[in-house]
Parts: sequence; structure tokens; C-alpha cells
Amino acid sequence: MNRFAYSIAATSMILALALPAASQAATAAAAKPAPTMDQILKASKPSDWRALNPDDTLYMDLPQGRVVIELAPVYAPLHADNIRTLAHQHYWDGLAILRVQDGFVSQWGDPAVEAKHPDHPPRSVGKAKSTIAAEFERDVSSRLPFTRLPDGDVYAPEVGFSNGFPAARDPKTGKTWLVHCYGMVGAGRDNTPNSGPGTELYAVIGQAPRQLDRNIALIGRVVQGMQYLSDLPRGNGPMGFYKNPAHQTKILRVRLASDLPASERMHLEALRTDTPTFEALVESRRNRSDAWYLYKVGKIDVCNVPLPVRKAPKLP
Amino acid sequence: MNRFAYSIAATSMILALALPAASQAATAAAAKPAPTMDQILKASKPSDWRALNPDDTLYMDLPQGRVVIELAPVYAPLHADNIRTLAHQHYWDGLAILRVQDGFVSQWGDPAVEAKHPDHPPRSVGKAKSTIAAEFERDVSSRLPFTRLPDGDVYAPEVGFSNGFPAARDPKTGKTWLVHCYGMVGAGRDNTPNSGPGTELYAVIGQAPRQLDRNIALIGRVVQGMQYLSDLPRGNGPMGFYKNPAHQTKILRVRLASDLPASERMHLEALRTDTPTFEALVESRRNRSDAWYLYKVGKIDVCNVPLPVRKAPKLP
Repeated sequence: MNRFAYSIAATSMILALALPAASQAATAAAAKPAPTMDQILKASKPSDWRALNPDDTLYMDLPQGRVVIELAPVYAPLHADNIRTLAHQHYWDGLAILRVQDGFVSQWGDPAVEAKHPDHPPRSVGKAKSTIAAEFERDVSSRLPFTRLPDGDVYAPEVGFSNGFPAARDPKTGKTWLVHCYGMVGAGRDNTPNSGPGTELYAVIGQAPRQLDRNIALIGRVVQGMQYLSDLPRGNGPMGFYKNPAHQTKILRVRLASDLPASERMHLEALRTDTPTFEALVESRRNRSDAWYLYKVGKIDVCNVPLPVRKAPKLP
Repeated sequence: MNRFAYSIAATSMILALALPAASQAATAAAAKPAPTMDQILKASKPSDWRALNPDDTLYMDLPQGRVVIELAPVYAPLHADNIRTLAHQHYWDGLAILRVQDGFVSQWGDPAVEAKHPDHPPRSVGKAKSTIAAEFERDVSSRLPFTRLPDGDVYAPEVGFSNGFPAARDPKTGKTWLVHCYGMVGAGRDNTPNSGPGTELYAVIGQAPRQLDRNIALIGRVVQGMQYLSDLPRGNGPMGFYKNPAHQTKILRVRLASDLPASERMHLEALRTDTPTFEALVESRRNRSDAWYLYKVGKIDVCNVPLPVRKAPKLP
């Protein structure tokens, strides 16, 4: 019993019975199901993909495996610069995942910062900055392409995708910002807006906490290895911090891909979000053609759109 | 550095600077912050809470701890009956969590059903039914109170809460249904609508998969112990099923609370969702008064509203 199966077996009968008052055209369409996401990806062209930039790619190695993060320098340039500087210096090596709050975030950084023990001062940030101006939203510009979703949003006037990241816009203010979907990575901060220099980062592991949008700088997205952040034991202290430091997960090392020799870099590609292929992917998720779906909702939330990443195929 | 702190320290200055074009009335309100969720819960009256009905409460004991599920018999009466019968018979004892798909669901049931090995037939369902009519939506009725949220929804015409569960309504069709928020529990099915008798259940562990709404029967909600379903290693097979049965988590036992002696029952209470206290809670999450929040979004998604459950306080 393959429940929620993604099979594309003959669907016309079931769909015809289940769809409300379908027009003849719709019935004809149902007879030949629209392509599924898997079919769309298989039919994609090389130009539908973009290679991840090594200057914008972080590898965070945990004992369980590697987490790959793509930085979003167009949205958070100061944070991206500081995070690159911290990675150059191997700032995170030997630090830890300090917090895992169920349904919310996993967060990593320097245990000494949280512990505030006089004998164990925090690690130096070296040449990196310890405060950065808030980068919570930006002016809409041509550098920030926007593929808008048609189905609206509870939190923002417009939502869609920009350079592969889920994003929102407000035509009234002329501002745009990244949104807190599953797997998005941000720079933790204290109560002052400039207190999050990127030393302590978090990834969303639950229902999109959209109330954080425009309240904190999102700096990128986990593009591979998300499960190593989401399957960790939940912290037993307030807000999911681990009471016992022995429960923290050690970070082996964090490296910027461009700091590694070419032979040690991963060759990953992300599906572009400004192409007809991506539009077809969105449509395949708004109206699932898989036989399992009896009711087609015809809508999608910005945080339910998959953003595929793959190993670069070998050239012929 | 208590990031995302829930402190309620003096907020007026920061808020006054950050809020766009606040009216004088709003400025005055900011000077005396609205109560936080914690403050609202602390001030709640006994009548704001309802005891969980032992006939509607399942305890699923895993090696790591107990998962408590509240059934939703008003929305899925046939499924609730069948699940009670299965629990009476100790159907799930010794079965396993078969699937953990990152950002989607954890799913449990009989490994033999999925394995389809001729020498290991599935466990008998005994007096329970092996097929049940679909219970994907119901007629709106007075038995289904509805506290509507004011902020709209991407997927449904109306969303809110009914008897403690997240729900949706369509005034045009006169139908109502439960929605797939984090922690909601449903009855897995094959491609035919009546193929999900409640033997194999799943809980949502990621971003609300709202495309499942009206496509499958939601039968309840995890009200405690969610972390024991969300922190499991992700399955390495297709759709997050474990390729190696040794990686499955064994279910020690599943019991209906009313099948246990009174001394072995937990005394849990859920916050009622049809009270002014609940409305105040929703408002405290639409506009956070915590000092950390610089921007107040003034909106909330149905799946971001907390549904508190507590140990019943001792009577004086």
C-alpha cells in the first residue's frame, strides 16, 4: 500500500467522478493528465538550471552528514560578507547546535555566548563584524527578479520567488523581502535590530513562522541535508535550548565552497525560478495530476512550492 | 543572548519607532503592551479549558516516550469508531513507524502491509472494518462550532477552529473539513477513497501539506509528545519509507484512555477555542507584543495558532 503514491496510472475515471462540474474542456484535459513534477524535471533543459556559486555556498559538516546552504547576497549583502569572513576564519569549527525547538527552528553558534560563563568567554569573531545594520527588507529593483504566485498569501500583498528564494513584495512600500519557509536560514539576533551579525544562525524546521518576516535577516536556504537539522533531539530547556551542553550537536567544520580546492567542491545546480519550466512545476503542484488526488485544490502556498536542487549532470 | 526571546520588557520606544504611521490610539496602546500568550494563559479561568474525553484520547507509547492523540469523532465518526476498535484489540502493539519523510509526515502501521511478503501476511484487523466510507468533509451544522480567523487563507474560503481543531469552511457548498496543520493525524489510504480504515496513520511533521485537505480523512491531532514523531531519522527509501526494517521505530502499545484503569489515565485539558480567552490568544499572536518583534504583521495563518494543552490543575 503505497499511500500518497506518486503513480501516474490511469486517472480519468476517478477524477471525472470527483471533480465538481468540470467543463468539457476540463474533462478532456483530465483524460490526458497534466505532467507531474517528476516528469517536468525529467524533461527540463540544462538552461533551466543554474550552478550554485561557490562564493555563495556553505558546507556545514555535522557528525551525521553535510548541510549545504546557499547564501542570498542580493537580499542580505552585509550578512553574506560577514558570514564569508567567519567561514574563512573557520569560526564555526567545533561550535555546536544549541537549540532545537519543535516545529520552529534549529539554531547554531557559540555555546559560550549563550552560557555566559565568566571562565569561558565567547570565541573571537576576528576580522568579522560583531554588529551589522538590519537587512530585513530591500527596495524592489531589477536585480531582484520576481516570479509571482497567483494564489495570494495571508501575510504579504504578493509572494513568489526571486533567484531561487521564496520572497514577498509590497507594491505600496516598494519593498521586497525573503520569507520564512521550511529550510530558510536566518541570522539570530537580540532585541536590537543590528544585533545579528551572522555568528548565530537558525534554520526553519516547522510550519513557516512568517511572523519573523521583516523582523530578522534571512541570509539563505538549506539546499541539501535539511534532515540533519530537522531530525535532531528537541532541546529540553526554554525555547528549545539544550539544558545539558552534552546534548548539543558538535559542528565539525563550516567552509565556503570557494575556500576549498576545486576537487573538494560539490557541483550542485538549483532549478531556476524565472523559466517556463518552473511555471509548469508550480502548476503541477497547484493541480496535482497524480492518481491519488481526488480533489484538486488549484492553489498553492509559497512555502509549499518545491525548489529542486540536483547534482550537476556530467557533460557528454 | 536569548534570541527570539519572549520577554515583555519595556517595548514602547522600539515599537513606536518601528510601527508605520501609527494612529494616536495605537501609540497609546503600544505604551501599555497587549498581553502575551503566556500572560493570557496564566490569567485563564477553569472554564476556558475542557478535559480531554478518555473515549477520544489515544496513548501511543514509543521507546522514546508517549504520543497523545485526540480523536475528532464529530468530523470522522466512522474512523474514530474503527480506531477505538483497533485500540481495544491492541492492534498496533508491536507494529512500527514505517515512514518519516522530511518536511511532510511520519506514518505508522503494519510493516507486513507495506512489505507484501508472502510468508508474513498482514495482521488481522479482527472486529474492525478494513474499508470505511470517505470522511473528507462534512455538512456545516450546529454540532460544529466555528471560531473564524479574520486573515483569510490561500486554500479555503474560511478557516478557523472547531472543537479545538483547525478547520475550514466553504459557504457555497455548505461543507466543513479539518485542515492539515503541523501535528494533525490522518488515516493513510490508497488511490480509492474508502481504502483508509485507520490501521495506518500519519502525523504532519513539516509545512502544512494543505493539498491533502479534502483528499483524505483527518482523524485527530497530536496534543502531546509531538517531538517523538518529528525527531525520528528520515526514511531512506522512496517517500521516506525505511528501506531497512531495522530502522523502523517499534510501537510498544497504543491504548484508548477509557480502556485503562482511571489510575493510569492522564488528566489533560485543552484550551477551548470558542471563548474570549482564545480570541485574545489569537490576537496576541497576530500582533506580538514581545519586545523582540519590531514589525507586527497583524495577521496569522490557521496553522500558526497555538492550541495549548495542559495537565489538569489539582482541585483545591
